[in-house]
Amino acid sequence: MTYDLVVIGAGPGGFDAAVAAAGYGLKTALVEKDFLGGTCLNRGCIPTKLWLGATSAIDELRNQAKMKVASGEVVVDFPALQARVQKHLSGTRKAMAMQLKKLGVDLVEGFGKLTGEGKVTVDTADGEQVLEYKNLILASGSKPIFFPGLEPDGECVLDSDMFLAQETMPSSLIVVGAGFIGLEMAQVAHRFGAKITVIDAMDRVAPLEDPEVSSALHSVFKRWKWDVLLEQRVAGVTTVDGQGVLTLDNREKITADKILVTVGRGPVTDGMGLAEAGVELLFNKVKVDEHLQAAPNIYAIGDVNGEIQLAHAAAHQAHYVAARIAGKADTPYAPGPVPSVLYGSPEVMRVGLMPNEAFLMDFDTAEVSKAPLAANPMAQAHAATQGFVKVVWSGGKVVGVTAVGHDVSRLTLGATLIVEQGWTEEDVHKTIFSHPSLDESLLMALKAERTKVQ
Amino acid sequence: MTYDLVVIGAGPGGFDAAVAAAGYGLKTALVEKDFLGGTCLNRGCIPTKLWLGATSAIDELRNQAKMKVASGEVVVDFPALQARVQKHLSGTRKAMAMQLKKLGVDLVEGFGKLTGEGKVTVDTADGEQVLEYKNLILASGSKPIFFPGLEPDGECVLDSDMFLAQETMPSSLIVVGAGFIGLEMAQVAHRFGAKITVIDAMDRVAPLEDPEVSSALHSVFKRWKWDVLLEQRVAGVTTVDGQGVLTLDNREKITADKILVTVGRGPVTDGMGLAEAGVELLFNKVKVDEHLQAAPNIYAIGDVNGEIQLAHAAAHQAHYVAARIAGKADTPYAPGPVPSVLYGSPEVMRVGLMPNEAFLMDFDTAEVSKAPLAANPMAQAHAATQGFVKVVWSGGKVVGVTAVGHDVSRLTLGATLIVEQGWTEEDVHKTIFSHPSLDESLLMALKAERTKVQ
Repeated sequence: MTYDLVVIGAGPGGFDAAVAAAGYGLKTALVEKDFLGGTCLNRGCIPTKLWLGATSAIDELRNQAKMKVASGEVVVDFPALQARVQKHLSGTRKAMAMQLKKLGVDLVEGFGKLTGEGKVTVDTADGEQVLEYKNLILASGSKPIFFPGLEPDGECVLDSDMFLAQETMPSSLIVVGAGFIGLEMAQVAHRFGAKITVIDAMDRVAPLEDPEVSSALHSVFKRWKWDVLLEQRVAGVTTVDGQGVLTLDNREKITADKILVTVGRGPVTDGMGLAEAGVELLFNKVKVDEHLQAAPNIYAIGDVNGEIQLAHAAAHQAHYVAARIAGKADTPYAPGPVPSVLYGSPEVMRVGLMPNEAFLMDFDTAEVSKAPLAANPMAQAHAATQGFVKVVWSGGKVVGVTAVGHDVSRLTLGATLIVEQGWTEEDVHKTIFSHPSLDESLLMALKAERTKVQ
Repeated sequence: MTYDLVVIGAGPGGFDAAVAAAGYGLKTALVEKDFLGGTCLNRGCIPTKLWLGATSAIDELRNQAKMKVASGEVVVDFPALQARVQKHLSGTRKAMAMQLKKLGVDLVEGFGKLTGEGKVTVDTADGEQVLEYKNLILASGSKPIFFPGLEPDGECVLDSDMFLAQETMPSSLIVVGAGFIGLEMAQVAHRFGAKITVIDAMDRVAPLEDPEVSSALHSVFKRWKWDVLLEQRVAGVTTVDGQGVLTLDNREKITADKILVTVGRGPVTDGMGLAEAGVELLFNKVKVDEHLQAAPNIYAIGDVNGEIQLAHAAAHQAHYVAARIAGKADTPYAPGPVPSVLYGSPEVMRVGLMPNEAFLMDFDTAEVSKAPLAANPMAQAHAATQGFVKVVWSGGKVVGVTAVGHDVSRLTLGATLIVEQGWTEEDVHKTIFSHPSLDESLLMALKAERTKVQ
């Protein structure tokens, strides 16, 4: 039997592609070498959100305690939390497996490799299994990458997978790489009382974000007494006598119970026979055309094509490619604005263009308008008023929104729709925003005086 | 001097009207008999949100404790919280006063009464002051109403104003009237450990909401061991020996430390000389036309016109009327969908039509689609998975969204924009929803199988 579609990788991209394809009536197989759900479910977004949810009472209590309104203590039992995480993950995987079964998608467990025209060979527990396909989707995802000297040793030097699998939370933690992954995990460790050190080679935390977002985050971290070391290169990390030892380029040494290295993630492409199948790699990313196609009948979605490393982007690409294979999508892939979110408290959300991007697009009309969270009653109610909402305009239309502060993730969908619609000054007065709400800080930013981006 | 505009009432409607009018260059006076900010700021939305925010750690801890992930105790110091509320309110009022001053709006403190063509007489602390106007906006708001026998005595029988002004939180509370106001306050008392009894004459809690929303709320309240008495008429409430005593129509008596009566709010119109000025009342509400006009040169906005008792609706009407007076609005007042929110946990949000309303509009095409929160990872993370999101369709377009459950208020702006745009099935696949997020439960409801409304 020849499958209409074989998908390699069952993360948010691959799983959604298989489900969507089955919905179109395509005979589909899904190949997964590890767990259903991929990195996002098993070693990424979901476990960290369960950690953040379980510890949110600690954060809320600290904020109110600072205002002398509340006192007490919240103790989160880390082993119990880890057990709950595992139970959640296995329950979710079970539900996913049932969904596949119901839709008639064949799940083939093992490492899949392209082995000649229209063939994938899967190294299963019961030996090799060859799947023939008319179409293939590569959705093999990504894995942590390391610069030389920064490799985890699994003892005191951990990557994000190892950090999530810990049995105890360290009482001191060095995070190398101040991107969203490292900052979310550092926030959880902070809630558990760990002493935090954050190191980045760039001149600011969250270096991919608006510089003002970075400095708002930085000021919160400073209030939390984190050591934030910027423009610092790390010569090496290692375990010495059960302690993590980090050596800076200037030979200075810093120690902590654990060192978490989160300097980036790179596509999983090794040993899959891609080159032989005519799939081109560029900086280890699978090159795709405007239809997310990598070679005849071969598509690549999600982290492996390196377009954008976000689960919801992968899922959106999945739906497009499944539709395309089913003959339901003629036009090139054109996603709307893709939001990105740092969860925790403070949070960061961003969608659409940043000020510098709007400036590059059209420096004549690039403007920003901004509102502080300090004036918002919901931020006040949670005693967490640091931060702001910023709106980016181009040609008189909203082209981007970014925000930093307590609970700003809740602005994501509204901001995405506003960017998608390209609101003008007139539109701002049309929609009724509920009161009181954090949404009103977005409304206030939309209405605020605009200044030109320099 | 004759004012271009005199506004009576400085709540969200009146204040925003004055500010907007000043922005149009109109010479404006704002008359307020009590505090800037009106009910919403001083005796309504804002104090309750500060209460809910201050106690959210209690709620989060309880949820995690139920999962055996967290333990401990959070104690909220109620007098300290009340002091913080007062500080917040006075700070906000001060900022509002400064804004008026900066814009050149004259704030006249005292009770304002219409006293002949183009004249308002204000009973100020320094005696009567007569303001002449070209245009008048009535924004006098609303106040709690009571049925005979349910009047508060200020001892153990309280209205919402008195409840918010308490010095201690009661250890047992009877709430008469299971609308949003009563339910929010009951939730706060519950967090403080009070034994709660809720009584309503209707057959369900939150009787203005979708019946499924009511039953989802009810099941949470039952798990909290609240006594919920439905279809019960109250014969009377009184204070006996320092205890609140409620007598049901069937003569049964229920006692508690306090009894909170929240059976409704009605417009403030007494003694304002409205009839003499040609302003017509209907069931005590100021009758307005399609331009929110009540009589020549007299407009009425917000609770006093009885259209909808929500601060953001009043503010939206304010902007329209200010623009109309400034000659900038020709068309009749046509607001977009008006969201309403119950805060706390569980929360309720609703915007647009409910299923029965869609059915009445067009019974052929009224449909609903629904997704449970149980499947959502953010609801899981907060160990609060009861509830759902429901989408209402008419003619193949989204005409309403309602949701109940933990943190569903965060769907409000997104749902409002989706209803405003009237999404079709196609639109559902266009926008990228971030993952993981509670927003995805809305997406899941949008994509779910639709059933016809019966």
